[in-house]
Amino acid sequence: MADALTQLKERLTRVTDLERVGRVLNWDQQTMMPPAGWEHRADHSATLRRIQHETLIADETGRLLDELRGREGSLDPESDDAALIRVARRDYEKAVRVPTDLRAEMVHAGAKARTIWIKTHNDSDFEQFRPTLERNYELRQRYVECFDDVDEPYDILLDDYEPETSTAEVRETFAQLKAELIPLIAELRNDDIDDSFLRGNFPVEAQERLAKEVVFASGAGVDDIRITTNYDPETMKSFFSTMHEYGHGLYSHQLPRHLEHLPIGNACSLGIHESQSRLWENLVGRSRPFWQLFYPRAQETFPEQLRNVELDRFIGGINRVQPSLIRIRADEVTYGMHVILRFELEQEIIHGRVAIRDLPGAWNEKMNEYLGVEVPNDAQGVLQDTHWASGSIGYFATYLLGTVMSVQIWQKLLDDIRDLEEQIERGEFTALRDWLGEHVHRCGRKFSPQETLRRATGATLDPKPYLAYLREKYGARVAA
Amino acid sequence: MADALTQLKERLTRVTDLERVGRVLNWDQQTMMPPAGWEHRADHSATLRRIQHETLIADETGRLLDELRGREGSLDPESDDAALIRVARRDYEKAVRVPTDLRAEMVHAGAKARTIWIKTHNDSDFEQFRPTLERNYELRQRYVECFDDVDEPYDILLDDYEPETSTAEVRETFAQLKAELIPLIAELRNDDIDDSFLRGNFPVEAQERLAKEVVFASGAGVDDIRITTNYDPETMKSFFSTMHEYGHGLYSHQLPRHLEHLPIGNACSLGIHESQSRLWENLVGRSRPFWQLFYPRAQETFPEQLRNVELDRFIGGINRVQPSLIRIRADEVTYGMHVILRFELEQEIIHGRVAIRDLPGAWNEKMNEYLGVEVPNDAQGVLQDTHWASGSIGYFATYLLGTVMSVQIWQKLLDDIRDLEEQIERGEFTALRDWLGEHVHRCGRKFSPQETLRRATGATLDPKPYLAYLREKYGARVAA
Repeated sequence: MADALTQLKERLTRVTDLERVGRVLNWDQQTMMPPAGWEHRADHSATLRRIQHETLIADETGRLLDELRGREGSLDPESDDAALIRVARRDYEKAVRVPTDLRAEMVHAGAKARTIWIKTHNDSDFEQFRPTLERNYELRQRYVECFDDVDEPYDILLDDYEPETSTAEVRETFAQLKAELIPLIAELRNDDIDDSFLRGNFPVEAQERLAKEVVFASGAGVDDIRITTNYDPETMKSFFSTMHEYGHGLYSHQLPRHLEHLPIGNACSLGIHESQSRLWENLVGRSRPFWQLFYPRAQETFPEQLRNVELDRFIGGINRVQPSLIRIRADEVTYGMHVILRFELEQEIIHGRVAIRDLPGAWNEKMNEYLGVEVPNDAQGVLQDTHWASGSIGYFATYLLGTVMSVQIWQKLLDDIRDLEEQIERGEFTALRDWLGEHVHRCGRKFSPQETLRRATGATLDPKPYLAYLREKYGARVAA
Repeated sequence: MADALTQLKERLTRVTDLERVGRVLNWDQQTMMPPAGWEHRADHSATLRRIQHETLIADETGRLLDELRGREGSLDPESDDAALIRVARRDYEKAVRVPTDLRAEMVHAGAKARTIWIKTHNDSDFEQFRPTLERNYELRQRYVECFDDVDEPYDILLDDYEPETSTAEVRETFAQLKAELIPLIAELRNDDIDDSFLRGNFPVEAQERLAKEVVFASGAGVDDIRITTNYDPETMKSFFSTMHEYGHGLYSHQLPRHLEHLPIGNACSLGIHESQSRLWENLVGRSRPFWQLFYPRAQETFPEQLRNVELDRFIGGINRVQPSLIRIRADEVTYGMHVILRFELEQEIIHGRVAIRDLPGAWNEKMNEYLGVEVPNDAQGVLQDTHWASGSIGYFATYLLGTVMSVQIWQKLLDDIRDLEEQIERGEFTALRDWLGEHVHRCGRKFSPQETLRRATGATLDPKPYLAYLREKYGARVAA
């Protein structure tokens, strides 16, 4: 047995390393690469993916998995080896249906499209972007057609980001959320609160300094965790994006080192990843204990803006509920509807009920229906996110799944660390980080997202704690 | 025939793409990667190299090359296809002798060593660096032992950087240079000239601005050419490093696009690469016509330093001959001895005549003998370059080979473009760039370095024009 397992591990190490090199190339493309380099980059990324795919779907992988099948029963199902075989079989069985050329072409088209997206987003020109998006959808349709035994086609796409989670389950969860969020937004929206101090003069350098202070004060050693943040000199809202990225970074940093070269050493799912980023962004970053500690430093950093704003007003400002156009700048209460809108539109397109040429109209209509806002242009509407350009269709749902999970995890944290809020007020983040490491991060990808969540919190996905948290934090009327 | 050739091209495309991805990883490691990331990076780079090597040495490559052998005769030897088969056979026959594990380990050790070098260089602590260097040499010894039919072991190392060039040929060329350079340095060294205006206050931002102006004024479009330059706020000498890197960048940019994914689309050799960088750094960047054009901009950029320094004094300052410690800051006349010293020491080690523990002493002795300088510490001595840390042993010679070639190329340029200097004075670089593109860059790696040089200039490597140029430019006595 050791032999087949060792051979499988060697093969998967190669697959995993290639995937990680691909991630460095992606990060480089978003940050350092001259735009004209896209064509080389698309070729190189496609070649890497081609080799990765071929290595995974090789007959030899199947043979090793077959050989291991008879002997798996003797392994502790919780052991790394059992998890590895499970995950490897899952990855293999999905990948082996997909021709290498298609897989490489999906990567190539995505890398190419990102460059086109930047230009068309700057120009706010959906029509110019449309052929690119059509191409991405066409490739996903072909991808979906590689599978014939599915309940609905969107399952295949979603599963790439949130494994073993069906569209029907997400739809049901989102239906519950939508039913409550729409009236909750109407009740909680506060158009009068004065948060004008959050706009004005926030020098980028000072923002960077402050962001580094909080991120490194939180003390995570790093090996090679890259964070990308955009600073806008007119607002400090990117502070919350940095907290968000810190959550992702900490998760990556605390993944199980001894499994680093194997697929089970990767993150569990994008939903679990988002549960970590949203936890740091919102449960920590928009909380009173955090700012009790940190607000004096923020005042020192931006004296012109914040000197005369007391803590309560600041906390009120950063938690103002107000429907708006841009998802990544949305408050906690309205955020979910931005995601639900995208999740619905993706399915409308996959099912042929909305043509891509009609997407901007469909987008604007839903924004109006769900959030009551008028979309002035495509840059602030349908072109605002890079995901569809990269071909990441089926991805958006994980933002809201993760947000829901983040509150489930937070409740368990409050049970397990009784003085968590006092610790945060004192600037002590060690217990929090260690808890997340032990209960979430160190599982890597050994278990499904739902099983990972169950192990951490005792429950699988449940939107109720999230809705209860919003109601309590924002002082809503008690639910009917 | 098309079939075997097409298959060979597909295989080599993969090899070439992997090599280029490896280069992005290298650049990233030198510029963006957090130092703690070295271990992942070493693993990932080694995995890429492993796959690249396996793909190249696969039985199938040999079979395709065999199949093509009979039919090669019918191809025009100057054609891309004939060149591709030649170069592929050469690469294959060299690589197939080398076990994949060794090849991967060489890459891994180099990536690891670079991080160690940074620390030991900062600490100026050779002893701390020694085990790393010993490991690199040990791996190169094993590499050399893979080949049994060589005149001398160093040939194998040199050939990786300067293909089809023997140690004996380089030794002979360097002997000619050394015999003339040592007395020339003694004659031309000028310890009295006042170039104090070149040290002082050169704000990094202003340096960056000026560098970008000249590099982009030179107008090369770029696809994805990365330049790394260090700016020192106390001197503007990094301007010449930027010119140097521009020369490399232009070469990379003008390589034949239609061969981009094939090994013949790569640069010819490091020597040819250096001929391009040294040409822009010295023949352009330290010339009177260039500064006739550009000096007023430099004065505007650094008014405090240069306002009261007239052009003649400035040109005298940037061309001051003075033996010094650091190769990359050396003037044109002393530069060669820095290279010869390294070339000699590498061979002393390979032949076991100098132990690595005795390297700092041997270094310091030769610096004294060749340049008359005392080395105060290892950071300014044996630890100054990163090459040996990366395992690049056999590399240094190419700097001087390239410098010699740059003058041969320049002479031909002056023959072909009679008003070249006037064009430079007017800021017109198009004819120069186009000539280099047509006569050097667009050959890629189709021919050997010597053949490439012969096609561009009519002659193979010859140190005489270089020595004559130095004598003339620096006003030496007529040679005996």
